[in-house]
Amino acid sequence: MSVSTAPVTVSRGLEGVVVAETSICDVNGQLGTYRYRQYDAIELAERLGLEEVWHLLFFGSLPTRQELDQFLGQLRSLRQLPYQLSGPVIRAAAAGAGDPMHAVRSATSLLAQTMDFGPATESDPQELRKQTIQISALLPTLVAAVHRLRNGLQPIDPDPALPQAANFLYMLDGRVPPASNARKLEQYMIITADHGMGAATFAARVITSTGADVGSAVTGALGAFAGPLHGGAPSRVLDMLDSIGARDRVDPYLRDLISQGGRVMGFGHRVYKTRDPRALMLQRLVEELGCERLEFARHVELRALELLAELKPASRLCTNVEFYAALLLEEVGIPRELFTATFAAGRIAGWSAHILEQAAENRLIRPSTLFLGSDLERVPQGGRSQP
Amino acid sequence: MSVSTAPVTVSRGLEGVVVAETSICDVNGQLGTYRYRQYDAIELAERLGLEEVWHLLFFGSLPTRQELDQFLGQLRSLRQLPYQLSGPVIRAAAAGAGDPMHAVRSATSLLAQTMDFGPATESDPQELRKQTIQISALLPTLVAAVHRLRNGLQPIDPDPALPQAANFLYMLDGRVPPASNARKLEQYMIITADHGMGAATFAARVITSTGADVGSAVTGALGAFAGPLHGGAPSRVLDMLDSIGARDRVDPYLRDLISQGGRVMGFGHRVYKTRDPRALMLQRLVEELGCERLEFARHVELRALELLAELKPASRLCTNVEFYAALLLEEVGIPRELFTATFAAGRIAGWSAHILEQAAENRLIRPSTLFLGSDLERVPQGGRSQP
Repeated sequence: MSVSTAPVTVSRGLEGVVVAETSICDVNGQLGTYRYRQYDAIELAERLGLEEVWHLLFFGSLPTRQELDQFLGQLRSLRQLPYQLSGPVIRAAAAGAGDPMHAVRSATSLLAQTMDFGPATESDPQELRKQTIQISALLPTLVAAVHRLRNGLQPIDPDPALPQAANFLYMLDGRVPPASNARKLEQYMIITADHGMGAATFAARVITSTGADVGSAVTGALGAFAGPLHGGAPSRVLDMLDSIGARDRVDPYLRDLISQGGRVMGFGHRVYKTRDPRALMLQRLVEELGCERLEFARHVELRALELLAELKPASRLCTNVEFYAALLLEEVGIPRELFTATFAAGRIAGWSAHILEQAAENRLIRPSTLFLGSDLERVPQGGRSQP
Repeated sequence: MSVSTAPVTVSRGLEGVVVAETSICDVNGQLGTYRYRQYDAIELAERLGLEEVWHLLFFGSLPTRQELDQFLGQLRSLRQLPYQLSGPVIRAAAAGAGDPMHAVRSATSLLAQTMDFGPATESDPQELRKQTIQISALLPTLVAAVHRLRNGLQPIDPDPALPQAANFLYMLDGRVPPASNARKLEQYMIITADHGMGAATFAARVITSTGADVGSAVTGALGAFAGPLHGGAPSRVLDMLDSIGARDRVDPYLRDLISQGGRVMGFGHRVYKTRDPRALMLQRLVEELGCERLEFARHVELRALELLAELKPASRLCTNVEFYAALLLEEVGIPRELFTATFAAGRIAGWSAHILEQAAENRLIRPSTLFLGSDLERVPQGGRSQP
C-alpha cells in the first residue's frame, strides 16, 4: 500500500493483532493457564490419554467409549508407511546429514503428494478431517523411519498393539518402552499439542487460506517449526547445560551470556509473562522420572531467573516449555537431534485443528506493508541486455 | 489470548494491517500502479531483461555492466541439477499424477535439504542471499525436470547460452524458443516477480521469522501458491473459456455463474479496485503475440465486466493478472498444468527479497486469537484408556 499521510501502525510481530476467532485453544498469558476447547490442558494431560485429546482437537469433543475405539482403530490402520513411500522414496527424503527436520519436511511433502489431496477450501469437511488424521497418524512413523535410515538402520514397522506415544518410542529402537516413559512422553505430547497462534500454526493457516491442500499447510508448518526461535530450541537447552558443565561455572557462564545480549535457552515467551504452566507440569514429570541432570538443571534455572531479573529486569523472562521438555525428552530416550521432530509429531494435532477451522470459515490472509523505499525514478535507457 | 471486556477487532484476512516496513515493492491499489524499489514495474518490464530485475530485487540496485556479467555467470552455473538430486531423488519427487505444484514443492524441499542451509536469522546476509539465488536459479530446472519425468521423458540439461526465460522454455521441450516467445515470457516473469504481501510471500516471511532456513520458507511459499485463491488460478481461466465454448453461450454462462455466487475466473483482487496494471500490459503482450483465443477472450472479458457491474455492483471486480496471463502462457507454449509452477518460477525472486528483508530485521510473527469456545468444564473422571 502506498504511504498515507496519517500515521500508520506497523505490527511487525503481529503482537496483539487478532487474526482469528477460534474455539481450539485459549492461552491466558497473565494467569499462566491455557485450555483446549472447554478443558484445562494440564488437567487433560493428568487424566486422559493422547488419543482422547486428539479426538477433542480433531472432532471438537472428547470421545465416547465407542468413538474412542473407532478412532484408535483408524489411527492404527493409518500409521503404516504407504508402499509409495517405501524404498527409494523415503531414502531420498532421509538423505543428507543436516537438520533432521528438513528430512521430515521432505518426507511429509512426498507423503502428502502420494495422497493427492485437493484444495482444502473446496474439500468436504469430513474428507478434510480424514486427511489431517492421515498425516498426523503417519508423522511419527516418518520421523522414526528418517531417523533410522540416517543412522544406517532399517525402519521398524509400527506395533498395532501400542498407543501413539509408546509406538513412537518403539519405532525408534525396536524396544517396547517402559510404561512410565511412554506415559510421560504422552503427557508431554498432550500439553504441547496446541498453544494458540504460534508461528507454525499461523503459517499453516495462511497457507490454508489460499485454498492449498493439507500437505502444503503441514509442510509449511514443519518448516516454520524448524526455526530456532520457535520449535527448534529444546535441544539447545541441553547444549547449554553441557556447555556450562559444572556448578561453579553456572554464574560466570550466565553472566557473560546475558551481559553480551545472548539468549538463555529455555527462558522467555511472547505470551506468558508468568511461569509457563507447561514448564511447571514438565518439571513435575521430570521429577517423577528421576532424571539424572535434574539437580544441576534446577540450579541453572534458579540462577538464570535471578540473573535475568537482575541484569534484564524489564524483560520479565520466566522458564518456558523448552527447559524441562529437553530433560524429559532426553530421559525417555529421544535422541537430542529429534527433539523438534518429536515436538512436531505432537503439535500436528493442533495444526490439524487450525487447518480445519481455517478451511471452514476461510478468508484469504493478505496483510499490508508500509513502503519506505526511495522516490520513484525513471528506468535507465538502453539497459536491456541479451545475456 | 483471553476474551477481554473491551471490544476486540478481528482481522481475519489482515486487510490493511501493516506487518512490515519494506523497500521491495509498493502497490497502489487506487491508482493501479506498482513498483519494485525505486522503479515502476511495468517500465522495468518494457525496458530491461529478467536478470537485471532479479538483480534489483536480490541486491537492491540495477546492475552495472560488470555486475550483470557476474550475476549471469552465477545464475548459469547454479541452474544445473546437483548430482544429489539426479536419478532416484528427482524421480521420487516427480511421482504421482496430482497437481504438479505438489511435486515441485517436494523437489524444492529435497533440493534445499541437500544444500543443508542453516537458520536464516543466524546466517551471514551475503551467504543468505547466495542461498536464495541458488534456489531461484534452480527452480525452473526443477519444474521442467518434474514435468518431463511425469510425462515419461528424460529431463533436459539447461543451455548455458540462454537467459533464464528462454532456457526454461528450452528445458520443457528441448527446442530453443522463438525470441519473441522468450521475451514475452520474460516480461511476464518480470511483472509478476513480486507484488507486495501476497499470502505466499507472507507465509515465507512468517516461516523466516522463526529463524527457519531458506528452504523451509520457499517450500512454504510454494505450498501457499498452489492454492486456487492465490497462485493456482490462471489455468482455471482457460478451463472457463473452454467451458463457455462459443460466443452465444457467454451471457447465459456468466449470468448463471454470477447469480449462483460462483467466481468468474480472472476477475477481482484484494488490493486493486481498478484495472490491474499487470492485466493491461499482459493484454498488450498477448495482442503482439497474436493469440488465437484473443478475440473470444476479449468478448468474455467485456461481458464479464458488464455483468459483474450489473449483478454485483458493490464488489467492484476488475480484470486481474490471471486473465491475460493464462492466454500468454498458453501462447508461448507452457502446458496448462504448469501455469502455477511457471508463475512460481518467476515469483521466487520476490519471495527471496522478502526472506532477506525479514531475516535482516527479524521479529517473530505471532498474532493473537479471540477465543469463542464454551465455558471451562472439568475433565471427566476415569477417562484414561490404555488402547
